[in-house]
Amino acid sequence: MEKKHEDYKKLAKKIYDLDAEVYRLVGSSLGRVFSQDEDSCIRELEFLMLTSPQGHELRSEIALIANMARTIRDKESRKQVMRKYNAILHEVEEIPSSFGSVDILDERLAKLNTSNLSQKFSKDDHLVICIGRTHGSAGTDIGFALADALKINYYDVEIFNQVLGRLEAEQDAVKDRESLEVIKELAGTTKAGRKMVKRASDIWRYHGLPKKDAVFFNQSDLICEKARTEDFIVMGRCADVILTNNHIPHISIFITAPFHQRVRRMMQVKNLDYKHARKLLLKLDAKHERYYRFYTGRAWGNATNYDLCINSASYGIRESVELIERMINRSPKAK
Amino acid sequence: MEKKHEDYKKLAKKIYDLDAEVYRLVGSSLGRVFSQDEDSCIRELEFLMLTSPQGHELRSEIALIANMARTIRDKESRKQVMRKYNAILHEVEEIPSSFGSVDILDERLAKLNTSNLSQKFSKDDHLVICIGRTHGSAGTDIGFALADALKINYYDVEIFNQVLGRLEAEQDAVKDRESLEVIKELAGTTKAGRKMVKRASDIWRYHGLPKKDAVFFNQSDLICEKARTEDFIVMGRCADVILTNNHIPHISIFITAPFHQRVRRMMQVKNLDYKHARKLLLKLDAKHERYYRFYTGRAWGNATNYDLCINSASYGIRESVELIERMINRSPKAK
Repeated sequence: MEKKHEDYKKLAKKIYDLDAEVYRLVGSSLGRVFSQDEDSCIRELEFLMLTSPQGHELRSEIALIANMARTIRDKESRKQVMRKYNAILHEVEEIPSSFGSVDILDERLAKLNTSNLSQKFSKDDHLVICIGRTHGSAGTDIGFALADALKINYYDVEIFNQVLGRLEAEQDAVKDRESLEVIKELAGTTKAGRKMVKRASDIWRYHGLPKKDAVFFNQSDLICEKARTEDFIVMGRCADVILTNNHIPHISIFITAPFHQRVRRMMQVKNLDYKHARKLLLKLDAKHERYYRFYTGRAWGNATNYDLCINSASYGIRESVELIERMINRSPKAK
Repeated sequence: MEKKHEDYKKLAKKIYDLDAEVYRLVGSSLGRVFSQDEDSCIRELEFLMLTSPQGHELRSEIALIANMARTIRDKESRKQVMRKYNAILHEVEEIPSSFGSVDILDERLAKLNTSNLSQKFSKDDHLVICIGRTHGSAGTDIGFALADALKINYYDVEIFNQVLGRLEAEQDAVKDRESLEVIKELAGTTKAGRKMVKRASDIWRYHGLPKKDAVFFNQSDLICEKARTEDFIVMGRCADVILTNNHIPHISIFITAPFHQRVRRMMQVKNLDYKHARKLLLKLDAKHERYYRFYTGRAWGNATNYDLCINSASYGIRESVELIERMINRSPKAK
C-alpha cells in the first residue's frame, strides 16, 4: 500500500511536470490544466488514481494536456512531449482498474463475430454475412451488390424457397408417393376428401408442424448447412439468430434509413404516391417486426442485436458496399 | 416500345442460355433454375423485365445462376461463365428502374458524412468523429483510445466545461467585474443580497438564458468553431445534431451493447452489486434520453440518427477502435 502510494505520487508529479512543460512550449492563453499550486495538484491527481482511476476526471485531465501538446509548433519538441505523454498514459493504464482496463467484450459474441479480426477464426470457418434491413432502405440492393463485389453466393427468401422446393420435391417423390396414393384412394375426389389428402400430405412434408414453422425450420437447417461449407450473404430470415444459436461464426449487419427517406424510395421503386407508399411501409414494418419477434423473441432493429447498423441514407448503395468491404478488411476494387 | 421489347427478349434468351450452360458444366442434382420449356421461361423473364425489374424475382433468378456458376470446378470454364454473367448483370442494371438503380442516398446526409469516401470533401474540412454511447458500453474508452490511435484531439463534457470555464472566467474578468462591483455594493451582504448578486452575475454570464441552456449553446459554438479548425473526436453533447444543423461534415457513430452486458461492466467498473448497477444504468439511460430529446427533438439511440451503430460487446474496446479506423480508411497500425 505504501509502495503504491509512492508510485502514484511519482506518476502524479510526472503529469504535473508534463503540463508545465506543455504550457511553457505552447504559451496558451487558456493557461495550464493545473493552475493551482503544485502540492494541491499532485495530491488531487494522486487521489483520483487511488479512488477512481477509471473515471472521467483523470482521463479528461490527461486528454486536455495531450490536446494542448498537439498544438506545439516546433515539430521536434512536439514529438518529444508526445513521447512523454504516451509513456505516462501507459503508466496510468497499468493502474489496476484504470480506464480501458474493464472491457465490454462479450466473449461469446466476439467469438462468433468474423469481422473481429483479432479473433483468428479457424480455417474451416466461412465468411457468412447476415443482413437484416428495413423495407425501402435498399438493404437488398446492398446485399446483392456486396455478394457480387466479394464474389460469394447470395441467398434470400426466394432462393431459399426455390432450393427447398426442389429438395422437398425430390424427397416427396421418393418417400411419400406410395403412402399418399393409398390415402388418395381412400379419400376419394369429394371436396372434403381432397382437403384430407392435402392435410395428410402437409403432415408428411412438415413433420406435423404448421407449414410456416416447417418452412422456417427447413430454412434454418439449410442456412447452417451452407455456413459449414461456403462463403455467402444471407438476407433476412433471422439468419443471424439461427447462426448464433448454432454457434456458427458470422457477421450480422442491420441496414436502415430514416422513415421519410424510405417512403421516398418506395414511391420511386413501386411507383406509388406518398400516402400509399407510407401505408405500405408501415404495414411491411409491422409484419417484419412480428415475424422477427415470433422466431427470435427479440425486438427487430434494436442496435444491440447486431454487430453493426448502417444508415444507408448516409452512404447510398455503392458506398455502403465499400464500407462493409473495408470493415471486413477486404479493400474495395478500384472502380 | 417495340424496340425495347425486342431487346428484353434477347436479354432473356441470354439469361436462359447461361442457365443452360451452367447446368451443363455443373451437372447439379438440383437441376436448372429454369426448368420449364424455353419459350415460357423467356416469356416470364421478359415479363419481369417489363413490369418489375427492381423486384426480388429477377434478382433472385440471376443470383441463383451465379451461385451455381461459382461451383463449376474447372477454373477456365468458371471464369468464362462469370464473365458472361457479369455482362448480363450489367445489361439488366441498364434497364430503366432496374434493381440498384433507385438509390437510398440522402444527398444532404451524404454530403455531411466524411466517412463517405466517394464524396470528396474539401481540403478545409476536418475529420470530426461524433460518438454517442450508452452508459457502460465502453464508448468513452473507445473514443479516448481512438483519439490516441488517430493522434487527434479528444473532447468530452469535462473538457468542454474546463475550456468554457476558462473562457468565461477571462470574459468575466474583463467585462463584468465593474458592473458586478456596483451591484454587490448595492446588494449588501445579507442572504437575499448575495442571492441577487448571484442572479445578476448569471444573467450577465448566460445572456438571460437558464444556465443549462447557456452551457449547451456555448458548447455548441465551441464544437462548431473547433470543427472549422482541427480534427477531433467529440463524445456525446448532441454534437452530431449540432454539426448537422450547422452544415459541418462529420461522422456520427453510436456505440452500445446489450443491457445485461452493460450491467456486468458497470458492476466491475463501479464496484456495485447487480441490483444497484442495474438501477443506476436505468436511471442514467433515462436521463441521457431526456437530455438528447430535449435538445434535438429526436429519439436517442435510434439507428437512423447516426451513420453507424457499433455493438461494442461484439468487438471489445481495441477491436472497436480498429473497426472504426478501417471504416474511415485509416489502416490500424501493426500492434
